[in-house]
Amino acid sequence: MPLVRIDHSDARSNSTEIAGAIHDAIVAVYGIPVRDRFQVITSRGAATIVAEDAGLGFDRTDPVIIQIFTQRGRTDEAKQTLYAEIATRLGAVGVAPEDVFIGYVENGPQDWSFGFGRAQYLTGELAVPAAPVSL
Amino acid sequence: MPLVRIDHSDARSNSTEIAGAIHDAIVAVYGIPVRDRFQVITSRGAATIVAEDAGLGFDRTDPVIIQIFTQRGRTDEAKQTLYAEIATRLGAVGVAPEDVFIGYVENGPQDWSFGFGRAQYLTGELAVPAAPVSL
Amino acid sequence: MPLVRIDHSDARSNSTEIAGAIHDAIVAVYGIPVRDRFQVITSRGAATIVAEDAGLGFDRTDPVIIQIFTQRGRTDEAKQTLYAEIATRLGAVGVAPEDVFIGYVENGPQDWSFGFGRAQYLTGELAVPAAPVSL
Repeated sequence: MPLVRIDHSDARSNSTEIAGAIHDAIVAVYGIPVRDRFQVITSRGAATIVAEDAGLGFDRTDPVIIQIFTQRGRTDEAKQTLYAEIATRLGAVGVAPEDVFIGYVENGPQDWSFGFGRAQYLTGELAVPAAPVSL
Repeated sequence: MPLVRIDHSDARSNSTEIAGAIHDAIVAVYGIPVRDRFQVITSRGAATIVAEDAGLGFDRTDPVIIQIFTQRGRTDEAKQTLYAEIATRLGAVGVAPEDVFIGYVENGPQDWSFGFGRAQYLTGELAVPAAPVSL
Repeated sequence: MPLVRIDHSDARSNSTEIAGAIHDAIVAVYGIPVRDRFQVITSRGAATIVAEDAGLGFDRTDPVIIQIFTQRGRTDEAKQTLYAEIATRLGAVGVAPEDVFIGYVENGPQDWSFGFGRAQYLTGELAVPAAPVSL
């Protein structure tokens, strides 16, 4: 946790950098362990991603769709800081700010098993992140 | 928002039409902006999709799996109208009603960033949809 | 329901067995109908999956990422039993226990349409699972 799905067009050749930048942003803002990293990255034909502007009035070049599944408990402020940090760090690897789309889905500590069929936040093998988290 | 994941077999050659029909149904029923469109579409081998009948007693030909991530607040009636509209519009592009599978996942206004690392429902750049929505 | 997304590396050649084992575990623990099976399975380059150890102190060989979307109402105990059963059954088809990663996301009975544009848990065509479920 978090589990992050990343979808971008195959016009981008730096999937590894993109995924790394997103993870670094989460570590920096949420303070999770560096090895608390779970990502599924799909490079795909540009036509298989549709990302318009929701009426905000801008154009995208080559969108990166980021979907973050993680535990509830972060404040709105923490999330906003995270989104900004993701955009900043993606900028450093060639993703323009208008191309960064993020959706966030929450669950609880009982909703993760990191291996061995155990729910490590319930067994106490992993500490549950404090909630709510304020910055 | 919504972010919609669409998975169908590569026996279907009209991904673009299918994705368009689903979006048109959401616009028609929920009244979202036409450009509030975010979709990730995967055409894949038929064997990579398993969709049985949940015990309802029918057979599928070539299922289309639709997963809708969007804000909470819609009534059951609104959702039911949406599902019906999706099935109707997909019928017009060759998807039989028994092949339409929909799963829906909810989150909040703080859970979206449409670009620039900002949470536009919190900044006021976008209006939060009224909740609950009744038809 | 449940809708299960399974992502594994293309070094594994037994997607069908893996998907079957996961479904069998859900049927065994949650008592859902055998044909209540909805899965999207992606075999992909190993570099497109990142799954570290969250700080637990172990190495993975070839992770299998399992994301379960299903109705809320199961107890923590039921979920823990499910995770253990998934790991056990995956072990029988060659997935080591350290390679089993599970994330779980919940919704409600109104959030599913199994076909025909209907919400079958609301229409009464399908019985809503009892909640909470205890074992």
